[in-house]
Parts: sequence; C-alpha cells; structure tokens
Amino acid sequence: MSEYFKSVPKIKYEGKVSDNPLSFKYYNADEKIGGKTMKEHLRFAVAYWHTYQATGGDPFGVGTALRPWDNITDPMELAKEKMRANFEFCSKLGAPFFCFHDRDIAPEGATLKDSNKNLDEIVALTKDLMKTSDLKLLWGTANAFSHPRYVHGASTSPNADVFAFAAAQVKKAMEITMELGGENYVFWGGREGYETLLNTNMKLELDNLARFLRMAVEYANEIGFKGQFLIEPKPKEPTKHQYDFDAGTVIGFLKTYGLEKHFKLNIEANHATLAAHTFQHELRVSAINGMLGSVDANQGDMLLGWDTDQFPTNIYDTTLAMYEILKAGGLGTGGLNFDSKVRRGSFEPEDLFYGHIAGMDTFAKGLRIAYKIIEDGKMDKFVSDRYSSYTNGIGKDIVEGKAGFKELESYAFSNGAIKNVSGRQEMLESLLNQYILEG
Amino acid sequence: MSEYFKSVPKIKYEGKVSDNPLSFKYYNADEKIGGKTMKEHLRFAVAYWHTYQATGGDPFGVGTALRPWDNITDPMELAKEKMRANFEFCSKLGAPFFCFHDRDIAPEGATLKDSNKNLDEIVALTKDLMKTSDLKLLWGTANAFSHPRYVHGASTSPNADVFAFAAAQVKKAMEITMELGGENYVFWGGREGYETLLNTNMKLELDNLARFLRMAVEYANEIGFKGQFLIEPKPKEPTKHQYDFDAGTVIGFLKTYGLEKHFKLNIEANHATLAAHTFQHELRVSAINGMLGSVDANQGDMLLGWDTDQFPTNIYDTTLAMYEILKAGGLGTGGLNFDSKVRRGSFEPEDLFYGHIAGMDTFAKGLRIAYKIIEDGKMDKFVSDRYSSYTNGIGKDIVEGKAGFKELESYAFSNGAIKNVSGRQEMLESLLNQYILEG
Amino acid sequence: MSEYFKSVPKIKYEGKVSDNPLSFKYYNADEKIGGKTMKEHLRFAVAYWHTYQATGGDPFGVGTALRPWDNITDPMELAKEKMRANFEFCSKLGAPFFCFHDRDIAPEGATLKDSNKNLDEIVALTKDLMKTSDLKLLWGTANAFSHPRYVHGASTSPNADVFAFAAAQVKKAMEITMELGGENYVFWGGREGYETLLNTNMKLELDNLARFLRMAVEYANEIGFKGQFLIEPKPKEPTKHQYDFDAGTVIGFLKTYGLEKHFKLNIEANHATLAAHTFQHELRVSAINGMLGSVDANQGDMLLGWDTDQFPTNIYDTTLAMYEILKAGGLGTGGLNFDSKVRRGSFEPEDLFYGHIAGMDTFAKGLRIAYKIIEDGKMDKFVSDRYSSYTNGIGKDIVEGKAGFKELESYAFSNGAIKNVSGRQEMLESLLNQYILEG
Amino acid sequence: MSEYFKSVPKIKYEGKVSDNPLSFKYYNADEKIGGKTMKEHLRFAVAYWHTYQATGGDPFGVGTALRPWDNITDPMELAKEKMRANFEFCSKLGAPFFCFHDRDIAPEGATLKDSNKNLDEIVALTKDLMKTSDLKLLWGTANAFSHPRYVHGASTSPNADVFAFAAAQVKKAMEITMELGGENYVFWGGREGYETLLNTNMKLELDNLARFLRMAVEYANEIGFKGQFLIEPKPKEPTKHQYDFDAGTVIGFLKTYGLEKHFKLNIEANHATLAAHTFQHELRVSAINGMLGSVDANQGDMLLGWDTDQFPTNIYDTTLAMYEILKAGGLGTGGLNFDSKVRRGSFEPEDLFYGHIAGMDTFAKGLRIAYKIIEDGKMDKFVSDRYSSYTNGIGKDIVEGKAGFKELESYAFSNGAIKNVSGRQEMLESLLNQYILEG
Repeated sequence: MSEYFKSVPKIKYEGKVSDNPLSFKYYNADEKIGGKTMKEHLRFAVAYWHTYQATGGDPFGVGTALRPWDNITDPMELAKEKMRANFEFCSKLGAPFFCFHDRDIAPEGATLKDSNKNLDEIVALTKDLMKTSDLKLLWGTANAFSHPRYVHGASTSPNADVFAFAAAQVKKAMEITMELGGENYVFWGGREGYETLLNTNMKLELDNLARFLRMAVEYANEIGFKGQFLIEPKPKEPTKHQYDFDAGTVIGFLKTYGLEKHFKLNIEANHATLAAHTFQHELRVSAINGMLGSVDANQGDMLLGWDTDQFPTNIYDTTLAMYEILKAGGLGTGGLNFDSKVRRGSFEPEDLFYGHIAGMDTFAKGLRIAYKIIEDGKMDKFVSDRYSSYTNGIGKDIVEGKAGFKELESYAFSNGAIKNVSGRQEMLESLLNQYILEG
Repeated sequence: MSEYFKSVPKIKYEGKVSDNPLSFKYYNADEKIGGKTMKEHLRFAVAYWHTYQATGGDPFGVGTALRPWDNITDPMELAKEKMRANFEFCSKLGAPFFCFHDRDIAPEGATLKDSNKNLDEIVALTKDLMKTSDLKLLWGTANAFSHPRYVHGASTSPNADVFAFAAAQVKKAMEITMELGGENYVFWGGREGYETLLNTNMKLELDNLARFLRMAVEYANEIGFKGQFLIEPKPKEPTKHQYDFDAGTVIGFLKTYGLEKHFKLNIEANHATLAAHTFQHELRVSAINGMLGSVDANQGDMLLGWDTDQFPTNIYDTTLAMYEILKAGGLGTGGLNFDSKVRRGSFEPEDLFYGHIAGMDTFAKGLRIAYKIIEDGKMDKFVSDRYSSYTNGIGKDIVEGKAGFKELESYAFSNGAIKNVSGRQEMLESLLNQYILEG
Repeated sequence: MSEYFKSVPKIKYEGKVSDNPLSFKYYNADEKIGGKTMKEHLRFAVAYWHTYQATGGDPFGVGTALRPWDNITDPMELAKEKMRANFEFCSKLGAPFFCFHDRDIAPEGATLKDSNKNLDEIVALTKDLMKTSDLKLLWGTANAFSHPRYVHGASTSPNADVFAFAAAQVKKAMEITMELGGENYVFWGGREGYETLLNTNMKLELDNLARFLRMAVEYANEIGFKGQFLIEPKPKEPTKHQYDFDAGTVIGFLKTYGLEKHFKLNIEANHATLAAHTFQHELRVSAINGMLGSVDANQGDMLLGWDTDQFPTNIYDTTLAMYEILKAGGLGTGGLNFDSKVRRGSFEPEDLFYGHIAGMDTFAKGLRIAYKIIEDGKMDKFVSDRYSSYTNGIGKDIVEGKAGFKELESYAFSNGAIKNVSGRQEMLESLLNQYILEG
Repeated sequence: MSEYFKSVPKIKYEGKVSDNPLSFKYYNADEKIGGKTMKEHLRFAVAYWHTYQATGGDPFGVGTALRPWDNITDPMELAKEKMRANFEFCSKLGAPFFCFHDRDIAPEGATLKDSNKNLDEIVALTKDLMKTSDLKLLWGTANAFSHPRYVHGASTSPNADVFAFAAAQVKKAMEITMELGGENYVFWGGREGYETLLNTNMKLELDNLARFLRMAVEYANEIGFKGQFLIEPKPKEPTKHQYDFDAGTVIGFLKTYGLEKHFKLNIEANHATLAAHTFQHELRVSAINGMLGSVDANQGDMLLGWDTDQFPTNIYDTTLAMYEILKAGGLGTGGLNFDSKVRRGSFEPEDLFYGHIAGMDTFAKGLRIAYKIIEDGKMDKFVSDRYSSYTNGIGKDIVEGKAGFKELESYAFSNGAIKNVSGRQEMLESLLNQYILEG
C-alpha cells in the first residue's frame, strides 16, 4: 500500500512556539481539560470533499491542486486510493473522524443501481480499513445538488421524478452511513430554494421539503438507524435563496411541520456570516432551543459575499464558539468537521496539513481559553448579576407568570425613577482580550 | 383653525402625464379594480413619526426640515397643532388612514401618569377631529425604544423595572388605539435584541419577550380589543441584532411559545432588504404561513447598510408586492403605511407631498400592473404547469403521503432518464417588463 | 453548413406587446433616434464566453446547458463549429458585434506555439466567415486568469516566468484582435490582486502591472494597432482584492504611472455594484474624466455577493445608463457587450435568445426613454438651475479662481442668512417614473 | 477647579493580568520598543467629539450618557468645563494628544463672527491650560457637515454662498489649529458627495472640491502653517456616496487636480471596512503611495452597514496596522486618534476610560507583536523570497525596462514548463497566530 503524503510525518504536539509548521502548538489530543481529553471535546473530522475531491477550481479558473493521486485515471481505482489516502491523512493528522457525501467516496454510475454498486464497493473497502484504524465516521450525507438533475432542487424540484430520485439517493446514503457506524446524518439543501419567485410555488416546495424529511425519519425508524439527523442552514449560494436560511428559520420550519423532535442543527461558521450573523449567534440560538447538533468548522471572509470555506484561524471565533459549546454541555454525537478548503494558491499537498493544523490549533487554543473563562466565572457572574432583578420582587413575578399588564402598570405608577446600569461592553471586550492573550 | 399647507391644493388624479407634480398620475381613489376601489385595495396610511415628528437629522447633522409649526414652542400646543395638521395633510393627500406611536402624538411627561394624561388630551382632540373627517387609525403602537430607560431593551431589558414600565406603556397604547378605532396594534422591538453576546442571557430575554406578548394578548381579551396584533420584523438597527430578525424567525419564535394564533406580521420593505431578502420574499413567506397582516411601504438603498426608509418609487417592487398581496386575498384590516421619510435634502413642506405622491402613484401603478398579470393568467399558468408533475402519478402519491423512501427507490430504479425543463427566468423577466412598460 | 438554432427564426421587431417571446418589443435596429439608428447607438455585442463556452456550472454543481454542439468531441472541430454558430446566432439576433478571449475561440495547446497555431486556424476561419457577414469584432482580450499558471496573477505574479508568458499571450491576442478588425482591446485582471497581504508585495505588483501595460502600449504602436485600450474595473472575485477595484481607483493608478492617455474604461454593471456603486455612478465617473470607453451590459443581484452576470432587465438601470452614455456623446468605438449569462436553470438553447432579447429590449427601451428625457430638458434644466449660483457673483469668482479664503471670509461676514432650496429627490424620482412608464 | 472623573485614578501600567479594569496591561508609555518609546510610536489622541460631545443618541433614541458636566446649562461655560475636563481626562489616561472640530470646542454663534469669537475665547483658555500640561493638539478640523446650511455639501454645495461660508470656517479652523500648535489639519467631507445623481453635477462639484483644497494650500502658505494636510476617506454615510470614497480614489482625485504633494491620508479603520477593504489594505495603499499621514483608530462591526466607531479591540487588526505603520517608518506628525465612541449602553463616565484603555492596550499589544514579527524577519523573508525571480534573469530585465512583449515572447517560447509554488496562506496565518498568542 502506497504512502501518499511521504514528506509529512505524524503531526505531534510540541507545546511551545516552534519553527516546525508541521506540528501542533495547542492541540494535545490526550490532554485533559475539565475531565475530558481535548480529542473528546473537539471531535475533529476531516471533510472528504475539500480534502480529497477539491481541485482549487473557481468560477474563473480550473483546478490548481497537486495531489499524490493525480496519475490515477480509472474512477473506481481513484476512489479506492483516495479512501486509503483518507485513512493515512487522518492518522497522520490525528483526526478521529471523517465526513462525506455519497458522491465524494464513489463515482456516480450510469444508473442509480450502478452508483449504488460503486458505493457498496467503496463501503466494503472502508469497513476493511476501519478494522485496523481508529478512524470513525462522524456523518454521512447525500450530494443532491451537483448533478444537473437537481438543477431546480431535489426534494423541492418542480419535477416529481427528481424528488423520487433524491429519495432513493438519500435512502442509500442513510444505509451506508449506518453501515459505517456514522453517528449523524446531515441534510444540506444546496438547491432547496429558488432562483426567482416568478417561477416558484414556495408553499408546495416547502411542503415537499417537509414530506421528504418525514420520509427520512420514517425510514430511519424502519431500519433502526439511531444516528442524529442534522439540518445545515445556509442562506444563499448556490441558489439565490435557500429555504434553510439560518438557525431561526430552520427551527420555525421544523415546528411548522411538527418535525422538531427529529432534527438538530449543523452550524457552519461561514454560513452564519453569509446570513449576517456571527458564528456565536447561530450556536447560541441552536443551543437555547436544544438543537445544537454539530459544527462545520471554517470561516468566511467578512468582505466577500460568497462561501469561502477558509480554515478557521480567528481566535476570537474559536474561543467564543467553544464557550458556547462548553456551556451547552458539548456536542454530543456531533463534532467539529472542517468544512474548510485550502486557498487555490495553496495547491501543494503539504498545504492540506497546514490548513488542518491551523484549524485544529486555533480551536484547541479556543477550547483552552473558553474553559478558563468558564472556570474563572467572571464573565458568567457579570451576566447573572446583570439579570438579577428577575430573581426577586416584580421580576420574579414576571418570570413566574404572577403579573399581567394591570399589575405591572400599578407597579410602574408607584415605582420611582428607573435606574439602569452600564452594559460595560468595552470592559468585557478588554477582559476577553486578556483571556485570549494570556490564556 | 390654521391651514398648514397653504401652498398645496387637494391632490387630484390627472390620469395622464402631467407637468403638475402636485397631482396623481396613477392613483385614482374611487376607480374600481376587480370589484374594489383603489382606495380599498391600497388602504394608504400616513406615518405620524416621519411626517410630523421627523426633522431630517441624522447621526452627522441636525434637522433641516422647515415645517409650518416650527414657531410653536409649548409642547402640548405643538402636539395639538400637529394633530390638526395631520387631518389637513391626509385630507389633501386623500390618505384614508394614519398610524402613530404613543410618543409621536403626545409628549412624554415627567411621570408615567403625566404622559398618560397628555395622551388622553390629544386622544380627545383626535376623536373630535374624527367626527368631521373620514380619516381613520390603521394602527397604533408604543415607542419603547427612544427613551434612555429602554437602553438595554424594553421587555428584554435586564432590568425588571423596565419590563414593568414597558408593560404599562403598551397597556395605555393599546387602550388609546382601541379608543380611536385602530384596526391593528403593532409591536416593533427596536431595542429587543443585543449589542454583544458577552453580556446577554438570550434565553431569558426571549422568554421575557414571549411573556410580554402573552400579557398583551390577555389584556386585549380583557378589554375586548379586537384589532389585529402585528409584529414587525427587522434584523438590526438600532441594535446589533434584533430578535425579530425576519418573517421566518418571527414565525418560528411565535410557534416556539405557542403565540402564533394571535399575531400576524407587519412587513416593511426596507427591513426585508436589511435582512438580505427581497420585499416580495418576506410577503410571500408571510402569506403562505397565513400571517400577512400589514405593510410598511418604503424602500431602502441597496448599497447602504442602514434603514433609509425612502418613499417607494421602484415599480418592480410595488408591482411584485401588490401581486403577492392580491394573491393573498388582500391585506384584511392591514394597509400600506408609508414608513417613509423625505430625504434630509428635501426639507421643504411641499416635499412631504411629493414623497407621498411618489409612493402612492408607484403603488397604484403597481396595483394596476399586478391586477393585469393575474387577470391575464400567463404568469400563474407558467408556474402551475411547472409543478404539474405533482398532480398525478408518483408526484400525486408523494403529495398524498402514499409513497415513502422504499416506494420512491423502486420508482427511481425503474424510471428512465429524468427530463427537466428550463425555468425560463429571462423570458419571465421580459414578460414582467412588458406588463410594467405597457401596463 | 449546419444550422445550430433551428427552432429559432430571425428575431424581428414587433413594436407592440406580443405573445411571441422570440421577438423584439423595443429594439428596432434601423429606427432613428436623434439622427442615429438604434443599432448605431447601442452597438450590441455577444460575449463568446457566456454564449458558447459557458455550461451552467457553478461552485456547487456541474454544467446543465444543452447546446447543439454537445456531440462534437474534437477540440478544434468544436472550436470551429462554435465560431460558425456564433455567426448564425448573431445574425438571427441582429447583434452587430461579438467579443472574445483568446482561449474562448481556440483551445489552449500543449505549448504556447501550439496555442498560437490553434488561434491562427480559427482566426482564418473567422475572417472567412466575416466576408459574407456584417458581424464585426467589438473587442478581443486574453484569458490570463483561468490556467493554473496564473494562480498568483499574470503581470502581478511573483513568478517572472508567468509575467513573460502573459506578455506573449497578450501580444498574440492583440495581433489577432487587429487582424480581425477589432475596435478595442480589453484588459481585465482577474488574478491581478491578492488573496492575503501576508504574502504580498503590493508595490512591486502594481509597478509590474504598470510595466505590463506600458509594454502593451509600445507594442501597439509598433504594429500599428489603432484600437482603443480598455481597462475593466472589478473589485473582487476571483481574488479577495483586485487592483482595478473601480473606476476611481483605475484612474488614479493610470495617473500614478503616466498611462492615462492610452486607456479608457470598460464599465461593467455588476462590477460596479460589487464595488458598492451604482452602474450610473461608474459611468458618470468615467465620463467626466473623459474615460468612458465601453460597457459590459449585465446586472447583478443586489442581495448576492458575487458576480451573477445576469442579463440586464432593470429599466431604471438601462435608462440611467443610456442617459449617461448619451450625455457623454456616445460610446465611440465601444459598445454594449452582453457579459451576461443565462441562469443555470435556463439551460435550453432558446434561453440564449430569451436572455439576449431581454437585454436588448431593456436597453433599447432605456435608450428611448433617456433620449426623451434629454430632449425634453426638464431634468437637465433642474440640475443647471440648481447650480446657477456659480454662474455669477461670488460663485463665478470661485470658479474663475478670483477668490481665496480671505475674500470668501469677507463675503461670508457680510452675507446675510444663507438660503438653501430643496434637492427635490422624491419629485425627481416621480418624474423619472413618468418617463419610464409613459416613455 | 473641579475634578470631573473623581472615581478614576491615573491609569497605570500593571504589566500583568489584573482584576483592575482601570489599568493598562500592555501599554507602558515610556517602555522602549526598538529605540522609541511606546508613547512615541503610538501617539495616541483623544477625540473631542466622541469623548465630550457625544450623548449616545442614535437614529432611534435620544442620548443616554451620564456626564459630570450634565448640570451646566450656559453653552460657553459648558464649553470651558469640557475643555478643562479634556485636560484632566487625557492626563489621567496618559494620552499625549487630542483632536477636535471647531464646533466641538466652542458653540456656534448667531453669526460667523460670533462663532469665531466663541472659538477665540476657548482657544485662549486652551493655551492657558497647555502651559501647565504636556497635552498637545494632534490635529484640528472644521465641522462643515452638521449645520443645515451644509445640507447639500460644503465646498460641493450647489449654493456658492455655502462654499464661501465653508471657506471662512475652514480659514478660522486652520488659524486656531496653528495657534494651538496642531501638527496636522484634517479634511473630512461628510457632506461632500451626493444623495442622488438625478440632481447632481458631479464634475462641477469635484472641480469645486479641488478649488477649495487649493485655496486651503494657498492660505496655509500665506500664514505659514506648516502642519500636514490630511484627507480622510469615507465611502458613504451620511451621504449616499462620498467623493473621498477610499484611499485609491482620493489619490486619483489629488493627482487629477495636481494636489498630491500637499496632502496625505488620514485612514480610519471603520471607513476602510465600509469601503469593503481591510484596515491593513488602506494603510498599505497609502504607504506605498507615500501618503500615509495619520490614523483614526477604531473598528466597525463587519455585520453592520454603518459607521459604528467602536473602540479597537481586535488584536489582528491592531497587529497588522502596526506592522504596516512600522514598515512605513512610523506616522511622522500623525498619530492614532481614537475616533471611537462607547456604545449607547456603556453610558457611565467610567466607560470612557474602559473604552480608551481597551483601545490603547490593544494597539500597544499590536505594536509589541508587530515589532517582534519584523525583528524576527520570518514573514518578511517569506515575502522577499516569493518575489526573488524579479532580482535576476528575465525578471530583472522586466523590472529594469530591458524587455518588451517581443523579448518576453521569445523567452516564453523557449522557456520550459512554468513552476509556481504555493502561497502558503494557511501556514502564514498559523504563524501570525503564534506571534499573537505568544507575542
């Protein structure tokens, strides 16, 4: 069996500033933070599509990536070698999980049956490779957006034949996810939206989207798939408008159709910012609704209007993300999947390692800082003090439902001048900086 | 009684291109369009705050507006003269409705009781003026965002005293809305959001927002207020993030707290675009959820990131808005409220008329075009044809719940190559242009 | 010789609302508007890349386009058939011009010499086709952004070998543009920018960009190419930042390097909006600097952050664009090139016609309206009246350089209260609507 | 003489993590970094408008700020007390400079002469206060945007009387800046732009803007003012479009009118981001054009579309800003002016200190890190290596003007396959993180 990344050794934790870019400065897999190892907290996953399938192409240029498998031409042979490379890559990196779309791991065949046969062959190989590896599947999903048949949507296509095909494809993707021990199954509706309302029946499309999800729930029950279903919000791109716009919208949609018990959210940082939210905001919204399932760990460029899927290197974002995740009690069966791609100009194989190391170290440092913030308690105490008026007196009555408009009017009439206190945003930002810079 | 806008005659419909800017080209109040008059379709309302309270100030400059009441200094006298001016203005314009915040019509007093007393005095005057006028109140609301007490929110303030004060204020605002025959009551949470998550308990704030709305529902029942409750989404400004982000988010929030039966939405064009949606999108989302209540008719500048509240003059927007409204069966008790302000550079009294005429004419023309589109049926037929696969065969089975993943997989296995058809966006855009340019 | 678009007849002007989508409603090529035919005013060009090369692929999906040449596999044969299809397409459409990148019309060979040989073969065919056709070349350009060699830029690459290659490629592209009678030559620097300042020497890159342009000027002189050189601004995409950000930036750059006499601007509507400007703004800036050269006629989606290159169908944009162009005295050797692509969902061959018809009709109607606005003179008179204070008294002194700060202070001390007048934005917007809706 | 900020001691450097929010963690004024003290490097200035004039008002709410001078009602008395408070504030903070607009320090009078008289009185007081203080004036400017007379612009007003008034006002502002030893004079054209092109003569307005600046240059020569003239770019707000859009645009404008020798740029972080640039980008563009003059140190919210003017607390931004400044040889007579305001919710007097401490510490830490990056040389070496092909062979010929298109074509024909190397963005971002987190 070939070694694909010969120039790269197993990445080790150095625990100090180092001139070796192929080492971790902050990620120490087995180090315990508050009773759990960093590996258990962070549950990093490598994204199959960006790492093995992406070429660096963009709308204005073809691929630039140099990859060790570039010389292989037979599609199934190539698919197998990439899966072997996946096990090597994750092992060298120390990533415990990977994630895939069905079409990432096996090429689409001439017919649906051929495609399924291709999948079966690769799944068998994967199971074999798993026997001698610790690598696990965080989640699987179906690519129901790249093929021309999905041009107008999958479950929201105006063409019922497309709905049926998508159903068959997702059925198979769920089956192989289960077979490989996948802990979650993700729905990202890349074409589930519209290009123009002039030709769109939004009500029917949303109804059909809900029907599709309900069928998935029923089929999971039937086959005994226990993985967590996840919906990944994104507001736009590739479509002008995607129905799963953001966490709030998806939660509303699920409740409208009575599906909220069966799904959690897979929050992506760059999708959050495309929807004009911070990453932290989307995590918080998910968490307080009991729906934080998993995370697509990347970052966007705040000055660009498309999904740049950059490796996450902003320490503020990772610190605040880990703060939200720790406060929510962790990610459960979810994890931090690097839905991140190296820049088109970072086209050498080593860059795949540099990118993942950058992301893993930034999240590991973020975890360390967030843990310290919570352990220290200063920030949390500031917040709980700020809302203390709801723990007694009229505030307690409000919270306990003992006061209505008339009681509150009486209170307000007799109450003296209201005294508010500063929200201290600048002081808190300084404090956060101290944790980050000295953490 | 003074005439405030002496230089301006009653605005008339000329029905032809005209050099007289103080005339309507498209709005003919009593003309029937499909069984209803234009007045009944459009239900235009003048917004008290922009028309009588706004000065043209902005964050970089003081007010520029020249108004006929500029010489009045006593606050209550000024408030009365403005209400009289309102009746004159709406009469000259032919606007059947107006809308207000409590603090627009009467100045805040030293205490809540004083404020209420001021309101009572103005309400009495208004009722008097209504006796000899056809002018009606479309909706009332409370300004719970301008005063420093609301610096951290009203119902979402960390200070329970503020919650209580807001409750008392809204109670009174509901009472006077009812007294003046207001057909709706609006909630816009200008400060119901956060500046930084570092100091925010989002869960408690959202719970309290729901508690507040529930109290309002209960109090309306108690006093027999039958007007429609409306929530107005806005994503940001003045706060960094507002909880009522957009239609989808508000619908989800209402369902989470079991409040969805008691509220509809007041959709503002500029708030839609600030949330990265088209105006049409927000209307459609509201309509298919049965929650289209009323409209704040304005437009933003798509290259500026704040709420410019411009008079609506884009014929595409008004045509598509009226298309959605007509398809939804009209606005019911709602209307088209001009939450629009003249530019700072349009500081002369006549500009108030020019602005409203621009908005009324653009919406009137939009109504004419939209009605023709629907009557003609070409657009709607294109859409229904496009989804016809769901009216028979496997599509019908999907819609009727007769097929699951297994049945659909069988179908997909045996189905031949899928044939999609073009969505014809460009052709539809040409067709829309024909309706607009020849409508 | 095959007919490629068999189902489509020659597009005719119907001059009335029509149910035939394959006809012009507003574009009447030989109709005179103010002494010139519409064809002469508008100088429409078909863009080779979008019309014959584009497949409907996007970052999340492969191509969907169905094209009559899909069955041809030999690259040079395909290139020839596409050129023949170009002549048929433009003829049926009545478009007098086309535009291309070198790599659009002939495939890249294994070596630069092979590539040039391919070009020569296609250029010979094109010259042949031109003998029996009125179709002309509006402009040529080189694609120095798609190939991996240009990953870090062409003239701004950190690799001097890439600069040299780009020079050779542009040299050839200039030669064939000249050979085909091209009236302009365009520079669009798709990769001339940076991804991150962390690895970028901006000063050297800008110096090299200027060196490259200077070499182009010198070579044009040497070979006697008289076409107009054009630079096309774009702020971002594919790179994070492109040096030719917008009209103002390019003008500054050219002046810094003493190149301003040799270049004009090719203004693209969608590039304008990506730079947070209106299309009209960029046209105005170019015109008042004497640098309005040509136009890439398309439109973006104001809610999306990437270059959507949609066919222009917004009548406001085309009216105001034609207003600027007419006021500037026309486009000279430039024209309106449809750098526009049909949506991915508009994948049938007829959609290519629907898109171009939409664009041509919207610009033709815009021309009609703009001409009327100018002929009518009301708008222009409003503006000239508004600035009349600079035609006499102190204003004239200012303009003529007769007053300095001291004189103006004396004037200000003795001058009474300043009286400004309203800018009348809303009235002007109503007036514009009248021209558009009754034009 | 009163002490205004009694609860706040002189802010000291603690040099360690500390629970005392009224202390510096990173800013140690007299500590030497590479031969200069931190004070000399950073040249911090307090902005008069935000610190003493701002009230926390926004378009949706009145002021919230609690200030020690709130009880003073006489305008001139208030102005004097604020100036005294300024000296106390800057002293406690250890800020060596302040900056002001004319109307910040003295109220506008009934006439221009009265306004000038008010200024003279405050200037006299200020000179007096300076005798016993080290506080200096970094720059002065004129507020020619807040008063209604400037509704349509100052030097770009369509009203020549307004141009004259603005000239007189700037003349006086220059005189007092000189009298107080101001080291620079700033032009920020808040209203120098347009609201709508429908009523705008852009060419005349730009000509007039240039005439105005030329008069300022001439008057400075006349009175012997040696301070540096600075133009501050901003793309929009309050106007829809401002002529001084960004650094590139201003440089082009100055070159068009032959004014480039007399002006440098005052780069504001938040204005950069409103123009869709990073702060670092605008600093780099200014520096490589020899025009980096001074900095308005703040930050925006990347998800909000207006000028939030927040205190700079992002360590990435301050590190990269200081990197650019150090590489440019420092700011010369310029400095880091906190054009930053406390949030509306941070309304207590102490928040003014928290905000400034946050900004000063974040910039001080940024200076420390940037200095280390440069001293270390790794980053700079990466960049110089990356461009090494321009130091010999064909690259050297290009740079030295020895090669044209023909020579480069010959080279390209004979050159073998081009080899590019990775740009290593992710590795560099990791390296930057190491400097920041261990700096």
